[in-house]
Amino acid sequence: MIKRFDRIAIELPKPDQPDPNAAAAVQELLGGRFGEMSTLNNYMFQSFGFRQSKKLKPFYDLICSITGEEFGHVELVSHTINLMLVGSTYPEEPDQTPMRDGKDKRNTYHFIATDQMARPFDSMGAAWTGDYTFKSGNLVQDLLHNFFLEIGARTHKMRVYEMTEHPVAREMIGYLLVRGGVHIVAYAKALEILTGVDMTKWFQSQI
Amino acid sequence: MIKRFDRIAIELPKPDQPDPNAAAAVQELLGGRFGEMSTLNNYMFQSFGFRQSKKLKPFYDLICSITGEEFGHVELVSHTINLMLVGSTYPEEPDQTPMRDGKDKRNTYHFIATDQMARPFDSMGAAWTGDYTFKSGNLVQDLLHNFFLEIGARTHKMRVYEMTEHPVAREMIGYLLVRGGVHIVAYAKALEILTGVDMTKWFQSQI
Amino acid sequence: MIKRFDRIAIELPKPDQPDPNAAAAVQELLGGRFGEMSTLNNYMFQSFGFRQSKKLKPFYDLICSITGEEFGHVELVSHTINLMLVGSTYPEEPDQTPMRDGKDKRNTYHFIATDQMARPFDSMGAAWTGDYTFKSGNLVQDLLHNFFLEIGARTHKMRVYEMTEHPVAREMIGYLLVRGGVHIVAYAKALEILTGVDMTKWFQSQI
Amino acid sequence: MIKRFDRIAIELPKPDQPDPNAAAAVQELLGGRFGEMSTLNNYMFQSFGFRQSKKLKPFYDLICSITGEEFGHVELVSHTINLMLVGSTYPEEPDQTPMRDGKDKRNTYHFIATDQMARPFDSMGAAWTGDYTFKSGNLVQDLLHNFFLEIGARTHKMRVYEMTEHPVAREMIGYLLVRGGVHIVAYAKALEILTGVDMTKWFQSQI
Amino acid sequence: MIKRFDRIAIELPKPDQPDPNAAAAVQELLGGRFGEMSTLNNYMFQSFGFRQSKKLKPFYDLICSITGEEFGHVELVSHTINLMLVGSTYPEEPDQTPMRDGKDKRNTYHFIATDQMARPFDSMGAAWTGDYTFKSGNLVQDLLHNFFLEIGARTHKMRVYEMTEHPVAREMIGYLLVRGGVHIVAYAKALEILTGVDMTKWFQSQI
Amino acid sequence: MIKRFDRIAIELPKPDQPDPNAAAAVQELLGGRFGEMSTLNNYMFQSFGFRQSKKLKPFYDLICSITGEEFGHVELVSHTINLMLVGSTYPEEPDQTPMRDGKDKRNTYHFIATDQMARPFDSMGAAWTGDYTFKSGNLVQDLLHNFFLEIGARTHKMRVYEMTEHPVAREMIGYLLVRGGVHIVAYAKALEILTGVDMTKWFQSQI
Repeated sequence: MIKRFDRIAIELPKPDQPDPNAAAAVQELLGGRFGEMSTLNNYMFQSFGFRQSKKLKPFYDLICSITGEEFGHVELVSHTINLMLVGSTYPEEPDQTPMRDGKDKRNTYHFIATDQMARPFDSMGAAWTGDYTFKSGNLVQDLLHNFFLEIGARTHKMRVYEMTEHPVAREMIGYLLVRGGVHIVAYAKALEILTGVDMTKWFQSQI
Repeated sequence: MIKRFDRIAIELPKPDQPDPNAAAAVQELLGGRFGEMSTLNNYMFQSFGFRQSKKLKPFYDLICSITGEEFGHVELVSHTINLMLVGSTYPEEPDQTPMRDGKDKRNTYHFIATDQMARPFDSMGAAWTGDYTFKSGNLVQDLLHNFFLEIGARTHKMRVYEMTEHPVAREMIGYLLVRGGVHIVAYAKALEILTGVDMTKWFQSQI
Repeated sequence: MIKRFDRIAIELPKPDQPDPNAAAAVQELLGGRFGEMSTLNNYMFQSFGFRQSKKLKPFYDLICSITGEEFGHVELVSHTINLMLVGSTYPEEPDQTPMRDGKDKRNTYHFIATDQMARPFDSMGAAWTGDYTFKSGNLVQDLLHNFFLEIGARTHKMRVYEMTEHPVAREMIGYLLVRGGVHIVAYAKALEILTGVDMTKWFQSQI
Repeated sequence: MIKRFDRIAIELPKPDQPDPNAAAAVQELLGGRFGEMSTLNNYMFQSFGFRQSKKLKPFYDLICSITGEEFGHVELVSHTINLMLVGSTYPEEPDQTPMRDGKDKRNTYHFIATDQMARPFDSMGAAWTGDYTFKSGNLVQDLLHNFFLEIGARTHKMRVYEMTEHPVAREMIGYLLVRGGVHIVAYAKALEILTGVDMTKWFQSQI
Repeated sequence: MIKRFDRIAIELPKPDQPDPNAAAAVQELLGGRFGEMSTLNNYMFQSFGFRQSKKLKPFYDLICSITGEEFGHVELVSHTINLMLVGSTYPEEPDQTPMRDGKDKRNTYHFIATDQMARPFDSMGAAWTGDYTFKSGNLVQDLLHNFFLEIGARTHKMRVYEMTEHPVAREMIGYLLVRGGVHIVAYAKALEILTGVDMTKWFQSQI
Repeated sequence: MIKRFDRIAIELPKPDQPDPNAAAAVQELLGGRFGEMSTLNNYMFQSFGFRQSKKLKPFYDLICSITGEEFGHVELVSHTINLMLVGSTYPEEPDQTPMRDGKDKRNTYHFIATDQMARPFDSMGAAWTGDYTFKSGNLVQDLLHNFFLEIGARTHKMRVYEMTEHPVAREMIGYLLVRGGVHIVAYAKALEILTGVDMTKWFQSQI
């Protein structure tokens, strides 16, 4: 079970202007295969079906703990997208075509299905799917999956960062890169304990 | 943000024997269109993008609060499925075909992709998708959606109840029917406040 | 069974110029979750499997009758899209790249898969799916679904209206808003008869 | 536009007993790639976007006319499935598990999502999708597609026939094989007129 | 089994400048329903499950042989897309937003999921699916399918050709049109042998 | 480009009797996320878009070489499925319902869509999708993906092995476990060269 707090992980800047196409790109970090919905749900279902959670408590606690944090990341990326869409329509009458800009933007779901708000789909509008979750039940394998997932997620964040200089997106990505880095190291250390392989070194060779 | 507790909503009975096909049916209540993943994520994204959350605080709080509870329901249904699959394989060597029963069961993902554990798919193995979320931004419409979603979810729970007498499934469904009933009434009352229509009466006419 | 007539619901204006991106947006009203393919097929399958159609004849007749009308709406939206795409290519030789404009438009299926004509997909090119149909067999629940579906469809139509001032789109949407309004009231009245709740009042509070 | 009649193409026998797995197989003929939803929607969208419908009137009329008939086929297959499911639950109280048989049947959507009624999905429960429609705008190519679609549909019908001896399924398939044969010949003759190739002979070589 | 050679079917020109939207359109020829992934995998699975391959050796050999060639076509289209994306980012630091152009391009997967390289999806980013394969086991029907598939593929190639004058795309399409023409004739002749119908004549009437 | 040989990787035994449900399970190893279609296509597209293939020749050659072998594995698993389905129908007339057994089997596509032959879908009939491919362009990351993919594939093979004792399945899986083990070590060594981390040791800790 969880207790929900009405608080967001970091304070996001008030944007000067909207950028719907950048918001569409940021959707990849929310609902893409390597987005926050994937990290949240992978760890969530792995923790629900964790075998021997008492004997392997440190590993169980690790996955549970990151699950909780990922909820906050889904929230943060959603708020980012929402802020990036503020101002993308005009305060006019319907006959004045107040959403005319939306017609030529990359993601029309933001204008037709929602009120310029995030939903769980990726940068091309494809919905997040439970097919993106992995839970083999082999702890080392699940941790390797998570290690790889976080590394892939890091690359996607870097790339979206390189696609937009929108201040809200940059603030959010800067924060998530740090947190994601912590998760990579945490999974690396867990793998090292279980296998004796120094995965942390592996990660350092990549930065 | 959330804080996660290592506690499940209700205590589930220890099952005497597995029923993989019943577990496969219960998956509809987890990852189907009217399953708990849908209620969780609908309310989650509606709350993230809730406009005028201060002015409309009671409605915002309602959706936030039910979101929190739904996390616990996803957890509960997952644990139910996991318990219903305990004992569905034999403690034998690979050459003795210890998962031979799984071959003829309805959901082979439970045996190949996971270690007889739940993942977010429905009773036919179709993955849950973000396409099941609705967030129009019109508060009355979103509440009507939620009211309808809970009513549909109630029907699905009743039907799975009528398909299996497995004690873990029955215990879980009995609990969720009560909680779901509370949610229906809560959304009905919210709609009544906003529109003046007595939706509660509507619901009562159905029981 | 049906008898088909070679006639369209209303006369559509001859457009002066194409607008492929607006046509792409209108596709949401054809093949999106709240598009005309959804209303047509929901009512169609509900009518095919309607229990006690004699005893509940007025309700059965209602759903059958709207099904028939929705066929005409699918037709009308398709013709609208087709008209909005007229003139989007040039009468030139292949080597002159006569479809060069299509390369940068939002929906390339209109240029590669079809001859600038509608097919059943939504504003992002995602295909309409039978997963959008609902048929619980509980009459009140099915009518509530239909009521909600029509309300959602109305919102989508309004939003596309606010995205484009193309005269063909506006003519079509204006007509469908009226017809959709009639359907909302019809389902509201049916619900009122069955439950005693004044859903019509509910709808009026929204306009 | 269409006018709907409350009449089914042929009278179907009253079944003695249900066969849910056979009904699940028949779903392929409704919502599979070669099912009646595909023939209906292919011809429907081809007719909506038919170019030069006056100059090429016989071909336009052919496609329009078969579209109308296919609506009746979707209806007929749906009714067949519905009849094959009659009696698959018991008139008991929920606690007596009246839908216990459904738990082990191939298609649980028939028991959870619907009241043992057809919806547009195939024999494995995958939803029909608009992706199954083809409309190139090249008349000969579209007719070749339709010719091939009808031939594939015929094979699927034959195979489902060979899988079940349920009298309702057999009655329906027997009828549709005749009608499908007529469509194959009709498309073959249309192709012959346009290309000079004797496709009818081709078909005969296959029987 | 196969032996792979490090050689591409034809030499592709070195492009002067990138055209990401044209590359996005070319993806239809790679991962669309009528793309090279479809021809490769259709023939591949038809050959794996070919009955009476000795008695019907010429037909078996034909399908095997074209399978091999199609691998080279998948390779060629992939290289084309890759070349069309060269130069679409800037050699700058992340803070300088070196992938800023990608944000407004039609296919963001090229920038986020890959390093501006092809993967098996179509012109709208929808992934290629095994659902695009056909293998009825009736040889004449499978050949008719292949004949139709090649004709549809030809139309798609022509249309992408008419959408872009990018020299790499044109070189590749020019080559594939020739090879595709050969395949059409080959399947036509195979059908003629088996049915006596002069399909080659049919094809000629279309050029 | 490739050259295709009419030879299968190993000789498969002639089965005494069919096992359609086991064949359905083996489909996971063909068209599932961790099946041979995934290994083939991942390495194929990674090799097509490999940057600096001359400077990094040993790594490029590794991926190209395994790609070639994976084609043979797709072939081998397909033949296995095909052999496991031999004898699952009866040599009778259509009216004798010669495919009656197929009606109750887990995968009806084997009976309706194909002539009891493999196509690229998984153990629940879900089609393989290009979404299963990964190509980040970061060589270490791509190799880590491949390492993880092979490890996941190994687990899936082991589990299907434990589900069926059908001799053809066992022969094929025994062979693929050896080859998969070689691939794991090969990717581990490549990662070791690039990062200095002893991934081979990691793998050994798992056996």
